[in-house]
Amino acid sequence: MTTAAIIGGGVIGGGWAARFLLNGWNVRVFDTDTEAERKIGEVLANARRSLPGLSDVALPPEGRLSFHDDLAGAVEGAIWIQESVPERLEIKHTVFAALQAVCERDAVIGSSTSGFKPSQLQEGAARPEQIMVAHPFNPVYLLPLIELVTSPANTVGMIARAREVITCLGMYPLHLRKEIDAHVADRFLEAVWREALWLVKDGIATTEEIDNAIRYGFGIRWAQMGLFETYRVAGGEAGMKHFMAQFGPALKWPWTKLMDVPEFTDELVDLIAGQSDAQSGAHSIRELERIRDTNLVGMIRALKAQDWGAGALLNTHDAGLRPAAGLAGGVDALEDLSQPILTLDRAVPLDWTDYNGHMTESRYLEAFAHSTDRFMEIIGCDADYIASGGSYFTAETHIRHLDEALAGDRIAVRTQMLLGQGKKLHLFHRMMKGDTVIATGEHFLLHVSLETRRPCAPSSEIEAAMARIAAAQAALAYPDEAGAAIRAPG
Amino acid sequence: MTTAAIIGGGVIGGGWAARFLLNGWNVRVFDTDTEAERKIGEVLANARRSLPGLSDVALPPEGRLSFHDDLAGAVEGAIWIQESVPERLEIKHTVFAALQAVCERDAVIGSSTSGFKPSQLQEGAARPEQIMVAHPFNPVYLLPLIELVTSPANTVGMIARAREVITCLGMYPLHLRKEIDAHVADRFLEAVWREALWLVKDGIATTEEIDNAIRYGFGIRWAQMGLFETYRVAGGEAGMKHFMAQFGPALKWPWTKLMDVPEFTDELVDLIAGQSDAQSGAHSIRELERIRDTNLVGMIRALKAQDWGAGALLNTHDAGLRPAAGLAGGVDALEDLSQPILTLDRAVPLDWTDYNGHMTESRYLEAFAHSTDRFMEIIGCDADYIASGGSYFTAETHIRHLDEALAGDRIAVRTQMLLGQGKKLHLFHRMMKGDTVIATGEHFLLHVSLETRRPCAPSSEIEAAMARIAAAQAALAYPDEAGAAIRAPG
Repeated sequence: MTTAAIIGGGVIGGGWAARFLLNGWNVRVFDTDTEAERKIGEVLANARRSLPGLSDVALPPEGRLSFHDDLAGAVEGAIWIQESVPERLEIKHTVFAALQAVCERDAVIGSSTSGFKPSQLQEGAARPEQIMVAHPFNPVYLLPLIELVTSPANTVGMIARAREVITCLGMYPLHLRKEIDAHVADRFLEAVWREALWLVKDGIATTEEIDNAIRYGFGIRWAQMGLFETYRVAGGEAGMKHFMAQFGPALKWPWTKLMDVPEFTDELVDLIAGQSDAQSGAHSIRELERIRDTNLVGMIRALKAQDWGAGALLNTHDAGLRPAAGLAGGVDALEDLSQPILTLDRAVPLDWTDYNGHMTESRYLEAFAHSTDRFMEIIGCDADYIASGGSYFTAETHIRHLDEALAGDRIAVRTQMLLGQGKKLHLFHRMMKGDTVIATGEHFLLHVSLETRRPCAPSSEIEAAMARIAAAQAALAYPDEAGAAIRAPG
Repeated sequence: MTTAAIIGGGVIGGGWAARFLLNGWNVRVFDTDTEAERKIGEVLANARRSLPGLSDVALPPEGRLSFHDDLAGAVEGAIWIQESVPERLEIKHTVFAALQAVCERDAVIGSSTSGFKPSQLQEGAARPEQIMVAHPFNPVYLLPLIELVTSPANTVGMIARAREVITCLGMYPLHLRKEIDAHVADRFLEAVWREALWLVKDGIATTEEIDNAIRYGFGIRWAQMGLFETYRVAGGEAGMKHFMAQFGPALKWPWTKLMDVPEFTDELVDLIAGQSDAQSGAHSIRELERIRDTNLVGMIRALKAQDWGAGALLNTHDAGLRPAAGLAGGVDALEDLSQPILTLDRAVPLDWTDYNGHMTESRYLEAFAHSTDRFMEIIGCDADYIASGGSYFTAETHIRHLDEALAGDRIAVRTQMLLGQGKKLHLFHRMMKGDTVIATGEHFLLHVSLETRRPCAPSSEIEAAMARIAAAQAALAYPDEAGAAIRAPG
């Protein structure tokens, strides 16, 4: 298990702490704020609520969280040190000097700075090669973007290590080619913020209307394709050059006149704060955080199902978690075929619950379907096989609900093969929460040709794998619940 | 049935045509481009693929699409005329003059202009009150934002009519308080585009990296809360004023230096077009359109499940469609209780399909669960009742798959109550595609207290409603498929 030090808590430092902790790292925190433990605890509660279920595989066991009064204690054994102290260069320089006096020489010191260049951060440092920008986005435990900005003083090895750690946290290191003030994303945010201040100040639109202009239009577009790919599509078959020829001149249009910076008067602050209260005041900040996180989880999981954007990143991360969880490979990869086979091990995601406050019935079947997919993969009906034209279709399903599961609950499914012969596959899934069976799923499937959509025999490899499992599981008792009808309600 | 005229096809005009058509309007198109019919056909194919399933209720039957060689024919009977001709003021003036010579006096003439103010469009018009900006966002058939910009020349009645039509299309009219060049959203797009051009030109990041900086970070944040609400949350309990005090000064930071407009040289165009090819060239534009639409449908439906943002808009739109579909109200609202009751009528959305190319098994249960919810609502177990502490939990489910459904297929569910007495509710759903039963769902539910999570008797109103349905459905044959186990695979 690896260790990270978090220097400076708050929303950003707390978000980093949660990312590391929930990905199995030990986390050591240093913060002079007496409220740090409470603040990080709140961020961590949000993270525990939303991150584990984002993946379709259980995350590794949580690491250990500790709080330290001195920098030396905080950085002990840490191979990553994340600085998230206030955005003033002299404070950061002081912290780096103190850190370098006590930390490992080859630990990465990442800075959460949103504005400073790495060369500025490195000024006067004992070992400038150790310090770089690793700029995250709130909520750090859900959003995968990290702007990794380095200077010529950073070594190739140090940069490679930084990329590796960021990737292993399920994040995306955007390594900039050159350092620049405010990196990339904040330049966009700043440009939009400036325009938005003008629009509110000039009474064109309220904060709520501006938010609607974003989230009902280009915001939801950008969530999946960004700027250039969106415009590429808009340009049509003629492509990007056509788009630029058509819209490029717009840059010269009169609305570029608003490029000065609006004066930041008390009146403007009051105007915006008042409109924001009218727009969002019905929800507390804590409620808004939870609403935001639930929305993000739902949208990222929607992208995950399409293997696109932030969802594609997540699928890559999940694929890395599967082997350790015993959820990868074919029948040869399994150690013990004689017992029901683990086919699912995950947390219940936020978007699987309903108005009754528990995992909704169709998500039980979604989980069982994932288990069936995993069982198919085990017997050799994997993506390549399906691409070659064979697959299994479910003909019948019988689910019995024995207990509830709530968002965040860790659930596992173990699968017994009742019959696997010729085109027939009869599976019995038991869904467990700890040692309790909370549901059973009995499924009868038929092997089909994806061309004719009719039943047909599977490959001989699949037949052989099913025969091995049948022989190994022959001694298992036939489940009482299998083969039963819904009980006649008398 | 109402009629809209589309003046100028292409991607935007075609998107408008699709929105109107799929919401039951007749659409009459005028475009001098000989390719117009093909181009609109392609947009319409994308819209038919993605829009109908976005809702949880079937849209009204499609209107009639016709193409016309003359403006007079195109605007005949149209109460909405949408102009999407090229972005040159003199062309628009010519079109408006010709339109006003032949169209109804009280028809709204909406312009898709992204830059001109309504007062500019109205210059020299016979009836300026008729002309306003109704600026949509691509893809028009999925994104709900319409910037509605009016001038003092527009009458209150005309503006009210415009808002009403936009709302009935499932869209959001953002009515600006004052007219301004480029309205609201395009000002933001322009600001970001300008920054992005600098970043590519200066070699800081490629088009792909910039897109990733957006879609892995603030893009997905903005898809649900926009700018101000996101910052309100970031400000924490201290609120918007605190956020502004903390981040306001950033406006003065050095990166505002990039506010000049980069020169639009051939080199810059080639650089961007080349990077865009490297980033997205593996997919054709048609493929990218379909990927984009599937992503948007998935994310908007994720927001719909949370009743938030674009998803909340959609829920409001759906609620308006329900009464006409016979899918609203309690037992008294139903005309004929003696037959299985219509409890679902919808198109299969894009995100309900799997690697086998058809509706995936868990979505059958999701559809049946919606039917069960609707049946609960009919007997009086509605949102208010659930909030008061009673609900139904499903104990057992038996699904039989008889045929496939593909994305876009219209499916309906009719529900027979096998038993509704005391705490017990036994339902039998038949899912139909046209006249074919494609699946059956047998469900046994128990009424529970949401406090104790244990079974208990429902309200007397619910008991009475169940008794009425039981009496009315007593003559229905007990389904052969009910009460059966999964057939022993012999």
